[in-house]
Amino acid sequence: MSDIDEFISARREANAAVLDQDHLGIKRFFALDDAAYRDGALSGKVKELLGLASSLVLRCNDCVDYHLIQCTRAGWSAAEIVDALNVGLVVGGSIVIPHLRHAIHTLEELQTRPDVSL
Amino acid sequence: MSDIDEFISARREANAAVLDQDHLGIKRFFALDDAAYRDGALSGKVKELLGLASSLVLRCNDCVDYHLIQCTRAGWSAAEIVDALNVGLVVGGSIVIPHLRHAIHTLEELQTRPDVSL
Amino acid sequence: MSDIDEFISARREANAAVLDQDHLGIKRFFALDDAAYRDGALSGKVKELLGLASSLVLRCNDCVDYHLIQCTRAGWSAAEIVDALNVGLVVGGSIVIPHLRHAIHTLEELQTRPDVSL
Amino acid sequence: MSDIDEFISARREANAAVLDQDHLGIKRFFALDDAAYRDGALSGKVKELLGLASSLVLRCNDCVDYHLIQCTRAGWSAAEIVDALNVGLVVGGSIVIPHLRHAIHTLEELQTRPDVSL
Amino acid sequence: MSDIDEFISARREANAAVLDQDHLGIKRFFALDDAAYRDGALSGKVKELLGLASSLVLRCNDCVDYHLIQCTRAGWSAAEIVDALNVGLVVGGSIVIPHLRHAIHTLEELQTRPDVSL
Amino acid sequence: MSDIDEFISARREANAAVLDQDHLGIKRFFALDDAAYRDGALSGKVKELLGLASSLVLRCNDCVDYHLIQCTRAGWSAAEIVDALNVGLVVGGSIVIPHLRHAIHTLEELQTRPDVSL
Repeated sequence: MSDIDEFISARREANAAVLDQDHLGIKRFFALDDAAYRDGALSGKVKELLGLASSLVLRCNDCVDYHLIQCTRAGWSAAEIVDALNVGLVVGGSIVIPHLRHAIHTLEELQTRPDVSL
Repeated sequence: MSDIDEFISARREANAAVLDQDHLGIKRFFALDDAAYRDGALSGKVKELLGLASSLVLRCNDCVDYHLIQCTRAGWSAAEIVDALNVGLVVGGSIVIPHLRHAIHTLEELQTRPDVSL
Repeated sequence: MSDIDEFISARREANAAVLDQDHLGIKRFFALDDAAYRDGALSGKVKELLGLASSLVLRCNDCVDYHLIQCTRAGWSAAEIVDALNVGLVVGGSIVIPHLRHAIHTLEELQTRPDVSL
Repeated sequence: MSDIDEFISARREANAAVLDQDHLGIKRFFALDDAAYRDGALSGKVKELLGLASSLVLRCNDCVDYHLIQCTRAGWSAAEIVDALNVGLVVGGSIVIPHLRHAIHTLEELQTRPDVSL
Repeated sequence: MSDIDEFISARREANAAVLDQDHLGIKRFFALDDAAYRDGALSGKVKELLGLASSLVLRCNDCVDYHLIQCTRAGWSAAEIVDALNVGLVVGGSIVIPHLRHAIHTLEELQTRPDVSL
Repeated sequence: MSDIDEFISARREANAAVLDQDHLGIKRFFALDDAAYRDGALSGKVKELLGLASSLVLRCNDCVDYHLIQCTRAGWSAAEIVDALNVGLVVGGSIVIPHLRHAIHTLEELQTRPDVSL
């Protein structure tokens, strides 16, 4: 299984275990999180890119992977995504470099997997 | 003097004092920072919005104010900016609310100051 | 006006300005935030203390002040609150000391204001 | 070996290696850290929950696992722990979700291991 | 009163109020914090510089001011301090720039106050 | 392959993949990052130690490993490095302990590898 496939399947299973706890607040948070990236005053496409940059500066590999998949599906090219990652690098500094490395690894795999879905 | 005018003038003066230290690394960092928001694979307009969301989740009021001014100048509407701030709120959680309050205060002042420049 | 009264009134006004933006996601987030501290599997009283410790380690003075007011109203004594702040100090390190100083200042004022409400 | 057993044994060995460096400051910090969770103005039981919420918002899986074990041993039920995690989720935002997933995984394993000890 | 004098006097008073709470854990933490910067395997002088860089990347103005005073007293020149701040800028990214501005302002005032003491 | 050798080889490969994206901003950031640790007003040796403490308080294992290698090559002894890590522990709190454990593990391996190079 590729790294991306493993990530997607582990994420799906773990999210199900979280929701199985049946905590109303957590369920509502998950719904609110999904809703934040739907078309609104801004397009969902632009908001996925905001999610990606935010995830990089907060240095969360799983969040970076998630938004890389969503950004690719939304139609951002690799060059555009790298340009967004550069903003995150300048904002967040050298401490984000390990996460930038991770992002580029995932991005490269995603270029060969245009059909991937969460 | 309005809050925004005060921010802009204090920022200009303090940046000058930083650059007066004449440290080559710092000067190059400032240049690199400016360059990150110029048109590239992504437009400068989109990248200012990435800077705004990143600043909100990292909870930096001065950075939020700076990118709010730049986003407004780049043509993002108040509704679009609020939608970007909402992504930052969901990513960063209730701990960003004080900075969201600050952002809305600045945004409201900016709506009456279409001509503001840094 | 005391520091606490000023905080409460500024917070109330700024929250109103945020909600006036009429963004559904933000409104739902604010509701979710309120709900998280209501009685559930844990009492609201215990959850306010969790909010306080979390706010201290994340180094947010406004959030610390908010939860100090709520913790005092919920019936935690000054000694119990200081013991909670100590957990935050050990978890978060000396970098939280400025926020610990702020917390103690607010806590002292709160002891003379048993009736304060948000 | 289960994930929890592996965590406990790796943690024990690595802590021993740290203390073997024989640095007085580090040794005193470890002692201070232990002491923060003993009964005081607040019960140790409540303080373990504060440690858990703080660890979640600071996004440290090892710290989350440690406090999950301690919270379970102190008598908090799974439902109470999930309610505490929800506070951390709202405070810390979607960026803590990967750590929430991790926490639920550990919590589920702990339910079958009432006897686990550090 | 200058900014530095105001900082020093407010810090002294607020620290006293914290210690007046008479919490043994907090008192021991304060002692441990002081001890960390005394001569050991490394000189106190070098360790103050580590405290400064750490404070900058963690974006705490009060901590930056404190370590700037200590670094100046320990004999680091303005140029050496600026070089340390540059490391913090590169590690922490543009989000630390507001704190770098603050640091340079304090540093300039300190150059005219060789005798300042905490 | 030892943990250090694996880290060095994975880092080298991943850095190459990042630079292969051919983004001018990223390339310039990497150059600026390297330059920050060269002899200047402060020696490169002292600045590596600043990088190490900053990496520890920001809780980045890869960054800690990188600076541990550089600090060892620059001539800092294990005892001096542990003393620097203690500053980071006090500044950053118990949340850095998992990263301190990681650092000690790497440091011990490095003592047997005086010749390691990045």
